[in-house]
Amino acid sequence: MTQTTPVSSRRQRNALVKAAVDFVTRAMVDGSYRTFLPLRRLADDYPNACFERRGAQHRTNVFCSNDYLGMSNHERVVAAARAALDEQGLGSGGSRNISGTSLYHVELEAELAALHGKESALVFNSGYVANDEALGVIGKLMPELVVLSDGKNHRSLIEGIRKSGLRKIVFEHNSIPDLEAKLGALPAEAPKLIVLESIYSMDGHFGPLEEVCRLKHRHNAMIFLDETHGVGVYGRTGAGVADSMGLAHEIDVIQGGFGKAHGATGGYVAGDAFLVDAIRLMAPGFIFTTSLPPLVLAAALASVRHLKQSNVERERLFANVSLLKDELRRHRLPVMDSPSHIVPVLIGDSFRCKSVSDALLREHGFYVQPINWPSVQRGQERLRVIVSSAHAERDIRAFALALARCMAAAS
Amino acid sequence: MTQTTPVSSRRQRNALVKAAVDFVTRAMVDGSYRTFLPLRRLADDYPNACFERRGAQHRTNVFCSNDYLGMSNHERVVAAARAALDEQGLGSGGSRNISGTSLYHVELEAELAALHGKESALVFNSGYVANDEALGVIGKLMPELVVLSDGKNHRSLIEGIRKSGLRKIVFEHNSIPDLEAKLGALPAEAPKLIVLESIYSMDGHFGPLEEVCRLKHRHNAMIFLDETHGVGVYGRTGAGVADSMGLAHEIDVIQGGFGKAHGATGGYVAGDAFLVDAIRLMAPGFIFTTSLPPLVLAAALASVRHLKQSNVERERLFANVSLLKDELRRHRLPVMDSPSHIVPVLIGDSFRCKSVSDALLREHGFYVQPINWPSVQRGQERLRVIVSSAHAERDIRAFALALARCMAAAS
Repeated sequence: MTQTTPVSSRRQRNALVKAAVDFVTRAMVDGSYRTFLPLRRLADDYPNACFERRGAQHRTNVFCSNDYLGMSNHERVVAAARAALDEQGLGSGGSRNISGTSLYHVELEAELAALHGKESALVFNSGYVANDEALGVIGKLMPELVVLSDGKNHRSLIEGIRKSGLRKIVFEHNSIPDLEAKLGALPAEAPKLIVLESIYSMDGHFGPLEEVCRLKHRHNAMIFLDETHGVGVYGRTGAGVADSMGLAHEIDVIQGGFGKAHGATGGYVAGDAFLVDAIRLMAPGFIFTTSLPPLVLAAALASVRHLKQSNVERERLFANVSLLKDELRRHRLPVMDSPSHIVPVLIGDSFRCKSVSDALLREHGFYVQPINWPSVQRGQERLRVIVSSAHAERDIRAFALALARCMAAAS
Repeated sequence: MTQTTPVSSRRQRNALVKAAVDFVTRAMVDGSYRTFLPLRRLADDYPNACFERRGAQHRTNVFCSNDYLGMSNHERVVAAARAALDEQGLGSGGSRNISGTSLYHVELEAELAALHGKESALVFNSGYVANDEALGVIGKLMPELVVLSDGKNHRSLIEGIRKSGLRKIVFEHNSIPDLEAKLGALPAEAPKLIVLESIYSMDGHFGPLEEVCRLKHRHNAMIFLDETHGVGVYGRTGAGVADSMGLAHEIDVIQGGFGKAHGATGGYVAGDAFLVDAIRLMAPGFIFTTSLPPLVLAAALASVRHLKQSNVERERLFANVSLLKDELRRHRLPVMDSPSHIVPVLIGDSFRCKSVSDALLREHGFYVQPINWPSVQRGQERLRVIVSSAHAERDIRAFALALARCMAAAS
């Protein structure tokens, strides 16, 4: 029996920490090291927030939140959350199977199924987990399926496809000719699943849904569509981009989330009843986790219902997006071509990206987080500017001017 | 170019649904099909809840919640959540990196690091994700590591080890001779990581921490310890089982959660600062997900702080656990040998397990969810009885009597 001193296990730990130091140091050197800005959000003064610098509180106007419609502080959402907190307390106390299913789960899942015109829906603790676990189960159910995955798919989709164990073919981002060629190279009868997003959140592109639906029929394929950034914002009832194009019925599995336009947290998939039921019974990250607190579900439900019948927030958002794009172009800023509500400004260098972001915050009180690797490719570093329905016109004009000054100073 | 009719893509979808139907049907036939009981928790009458049957509301006394200490409705927890909701709204609006870091994240992570005597801590959206992602990153940092994994480890640990890509050796559940033999068969200098839980939540066993710490030194190993069911409940400050044994300093990475004793939701890991920082920078399920709502963090922080200085809830819990075990034994029920606060009663058949659970609910108003595969092995089906600090003595006595009657009727 090997008998060594306690130093040995410490040496292994030191080796692990050394590997961590190496990684962290490399990230610092190449500019991908991330520092988070801790915020105190101000619900009654949205989209403003407080942050601390050298012991003093400062105020910032946030231009990078996914709370697109300000629903995180909408009176109906907050009232629903408060009522559920008072009645039911905070945590659910268990997994969905073991005392953690709330009446709100049932109502919310029925509401989501109806919203998307699907038979059934299933709520997960996050949109990330929804993608990861649903794709994992689809792979177990149909191991002969071939996945055609857009080259810019979100990491949660990539991880889900990996978990599925399915054969994966990546097609060029939004390239219908490439997708068509890759579908055509597969046997006609082979079952295929096209996985894409309705909005690519780092670029603001829409996925080419019409053409993908056309190819689906021609090549025996199914479609898994990530609508995380689309739900709430697009469609007359907030059902997303596919619905706004009259294509929701063509989508086999729709995924969405409450963490963006709905101002809450969590995610879901909607589809055929038995498929959703199989995901419910098989997905480990669904089964073996504490369910969301009842108040989160109550809030998500209030938000989904409100956005089903109110267009006010969406109209305000798109008016603001329009003004923002005009203002940024007027200042000749390198706005990337984005047809959606997401407005990326290309910087192309991680250090410069961070320094422009720092100057905006320090000198002008505007917060836009630099987007560096691994969220985007190196050389594609950008500021992903997000205006919300709650931004004032003067803030948007002031922001564009401030950004122009900071960009000029950093060049 | 193959040109087929729209029927083809529908045929593929039918094939997927058919596979789902087959799975669901098999689950119904073998008794592993799960039906969830939707609850309306009653914060002011904990541990009671309401549920619906045939359109009428019924009341149930819950004997299977992980809200061990009733913290989900503790006044400090609820007040902290309410204050954060009023001040900050509901959702965080972004990932940790992009406007989703709250001041509460910073406070909570500092509090957790101090609680466990570690340099640093990192909060995830769930305990499941914490295990899955932290182990994944450890594998990327140190690919030569060999994992020794307890045979009954939680699915989140199994998935994390799979994600890590590391060589895995499973040792018999809680068997020190088997662990020792497997460690001894590896090269003395090979880095090794022992992955175990402080409490196995389906059995109520403790992991053999003292002996594992001894082996760690003899075999150049590190320890990753899941304390999900231990934190809050064990240790003078609620720091968990390892701390209660004076062994926290021997644990290289401690994982815990807020979804059980803390009455909230979310999870974390604590360990060396650079390791935690590397996990922060590398883990996709941490980076690419909307962070927890500020109010959840505020509630978790209030709960951790309260349980750091109050033993009242723990003392009540253990008095109730003691009474429950005595009562179950007095009625000669097949209580499994559990030294912890988790009290499983073996049934050994999935249909019988469900029928006893149904009868308890229908005839006596007590809710204990049947635990079937995949949570436990087939043949090991059980009722996992959980009493909380808030249960009244008369409820515990009535429950044991009711269980004895239902078991007798079902045999």
